Amino acid sequence: MSELAPFPTSEYTRRVERTRERMREAGLDAVLVTDPANMNYLTGYESWSFYVHQGVLVTLDHDPVWVGREMDAKSAEVTTWMDDEHVLSYTDDYVQSPHDKHPMDYVAAVIEEYGYDDRTLGVEMDAYYYTARSHARLTDQLPEADVQDATLLVNQVRLKKSDAELDYMRQAAELAETGMQAAVDTIAEGVRESDAAAAIYEGLIGGTEEFGGDYPAIVPLMPSGDYTGTPHLSWSDREFEEGDPVIVELAGCKHRYHCPMARTLTVGEPSPEMAETAEVVIEGLETTLDRIQPGMTAAEAEAVWSESIAKHGIEKDSRLGYSTGVGYPPDWGEHTVSLRPEDDTVLEPGMTFHVIPGIWFDDFGVEISETIHITENGAETLADFGRDLFVV
Amino acid sequence: MSELAPFPTSEYTRRVERTRERMREAGLDAVLVTDPANMNYLTGYESWSFYVHQGVLVTLDHDPVWVGREMDAKSAEVTTWMDDEHVLSYTDDYVQSPHDKHPMDYVAAVIEEYGYDDRTLGVEMDAYYYTARSHARLTDQLPEADVQDATLLVNQVRLKKSDAELDYMRQAAELAETGMQAAVDTIAEGVRESDAAAAIYEGLIGGTEEFGGDYPAIVPLMPSGDYTGTPHLSWSDREFEEGDPVIVELAGCKHRYHCPMARTLTVGEPSPEMAETAEVVIEGLETTLDRIQPGMTAAEAEAVWSESIAKHGIEKDSRLGYSTGVGYPPDWGEHTVSLRPEDDTVLEPGMTFHVIPGIWFDDFGVEISETIHITENGAETLADFGRDLFVV
Repeated sequence: MSELAPFPTSEYTRRVERTRERMREAGLDAVLVTDPANMNYLTGYESWSFYVHQGVLVTLDHDPVWVGREMDAKSAEVTTWMDDEHVLSYTDDYVQSPHDKHPMDYVAAVIEEYGYDDRTLGVEMDAYYYTARSHARLTDQLPEADVQDATLLVNQVRLKKSDAELDYMRQAAELAETGMQAAVDTIAEGVRESDAAAAIYEGLIGGTEEFGGDYPAIVPLMPSGDYTGTPHLSWSDREFEEGDPVIVELAGCKHRYHCPMARTLTVGEPSPEMAETAEVVIEGLETTLDRIQPGMTAAEAEAVWSESIAKHGIEKDSRLGYSTGVGYPPDWGEHTVSLRPEDDTVLEPGMTFHVIPGIWFDDFGVEISETIHITENGAETLADFGRDLFVV
Repeated sequence: MSELAPFPTSEYTRRVERTRERMREAGLDAVLVTDPANMNYLTGYESWSFYVHQGVLVTLDHDPVWVGREMDAKSAEVTTWMDDEHVLSYTDDYVQSPHDKHPMDYVAAVIEEYGYDDRTLGVEMDAYYYTARSHARLTDQLPEADVQDATLLVNQVRLKKSDAELDYMRQAAELAETGMQAAVDTIAEGVRESDAAAAIYEGLIGGTEEFGGDYPAIVPLMPSGDYTGTPHLSWSDREFEEGDPVIVELAGCKHRYHCPMARTLTVGEPSPEMAETAEVVIEGLETTLDRIQPGMTAAEAEAVWSESIAKHGIEKDSRLGYSTGVGYPPDWGEHTVSLRPEDDTVLEPGMTFHVIPGIWFDDFGVEISETIHITENGAETLADFGRDLFVV
């Protein structure tokens, strides 16, 4: 029981209590939590098992119940704070069984066993691994339940980090620095992109003498050459060439807490347009970091950036950043607050954001980012890594 | 257009044609393909963008249409064979926008524009990233469409590999060997699990002099010590200790094609039970590989293994293996054929499977696996790596 959990049980039970407060406000008797980050947040559960259907049933009256594949029950027993009675598992013939059985049949039976089959039940309608069929099977088997959308209910609880969570995010920041330094040290004319990626992994996972890193929810992204305008490419066996711009976006990760970071490099001297764009991005980022503070809305934070680049005649359509923390593939974002004009969330101390200003043109792009923690009177930048355009 | 695609356009158009044959058989006029592996398979599309909603609309009458986020449209333009007219994208305010807009609203508009809003439309109900809300939004906006479940329709087309696909899987096998060799060379008493993971990544991604590797769909899994009975743990900062069993499961990956491989190591001499279990696993695996051949069913292949271990008084409940090939996180399995008693699929030349016999007890487990290609008269093992219990 919880021998591998990174936090004391009291931290998890507080999180469950805060989840229950939101459930009461929303009129929910139970929530089936299927987002792996939310499962981890509430119980400590950690395993690469989200490729099969699983969930945690949080109710107002009982301890949470983990439900998953039999093969993963032992992971639940050693990584969560719940006793073994609250770990329930389905047999292997439910796994990817095209025609007959679906794991949600088993989950529905558990919900019935706990007496929630005729109550108000929340499900995370837009969580990655809660598929359309999962929902159809679950609702078919629970005809008496009042099923409501509880997407982001737990994610909202995750927004403000405790000191213990921030400690892991600061460790993740050190790992991000190590990974980014490996990129700066390795990328050069004639080096294969894949070899640079290998060196970055060595930095992110091998880490420091004090600690290594966990796998980040997104692999290092490193579009280069003609492709820096396509921000979500990973790497190939192409060799870097003189004149290439390279954008490296990565995150350090510790106990599933992330610190994302992006930097832009050039192999040899940058073009004048590239150097100028980098200056605009750095000025906009630094102005935003100077002025961001609690009490401001997400939209107001974005406006600082927009106004800064507008002075140079540039507009950007995509969001400036998003809240980050616990994450599993495919995303380290929390999906709650976005720094963009449409988001009126008031920033509060303890929230953490990946502020990722980027400007992309047809043939090149510049991204330089920081992960920040909103403090009582401003923002702490978690990592400590130069904000230059790196010439390698 | 397709400047980064790993196959000639003719290979993709053949795949689309085979998909259309299945669509006709199923009475479907169109299919919205959202599984990133299926999107890649049909179009070449490659990007870490599956954390936002996206899809490829395959119809009987038009070239496929990629629909996704504006920021990723350029990736679609350079990695797919379709012309830019068939790349349609939504603006950034659709991304993770909790209350107003959902990307499927845009997808529905595209389906309407192409005239399929009152036709029979397949969707992949149980694909990872096709969420319950995606389905609800899509069907709400297309009240006249006859929406059918087309889960695995494209996956079935993927089962039999072409020679060009097998070439990439053989490259992936070399990468798996390099990664596993790094594990064997690095794991030792006093070494941190995270440092071993970093070395494995260096092998998998840094690869060989001829080529590097892409990121595998699952991170290296390496449960050790008391935890080899929990197969889906990754790594921590624990140092390996004398007597530890370690299971390493990894995959090499090239152009999204995988070759998974598992081996079991012990730090110092294995316990007698461990050595004996390894012998049972190796004997069962080798008997299965000797006898597996086209014309046999998946269930019959599994029976060879079951009978082999039954001679030693051992039963195993989980499946023996599954088809593999193109994959994105969270899985390198194709989700079609499982080697298990309930699966009567007839094995055919060109199919590829990860055959992963494992025996887990409460306090230790042994896994030793191979990825194979069914040939005209037997099976080819893709990687060439010793099947011993490795003593390090």
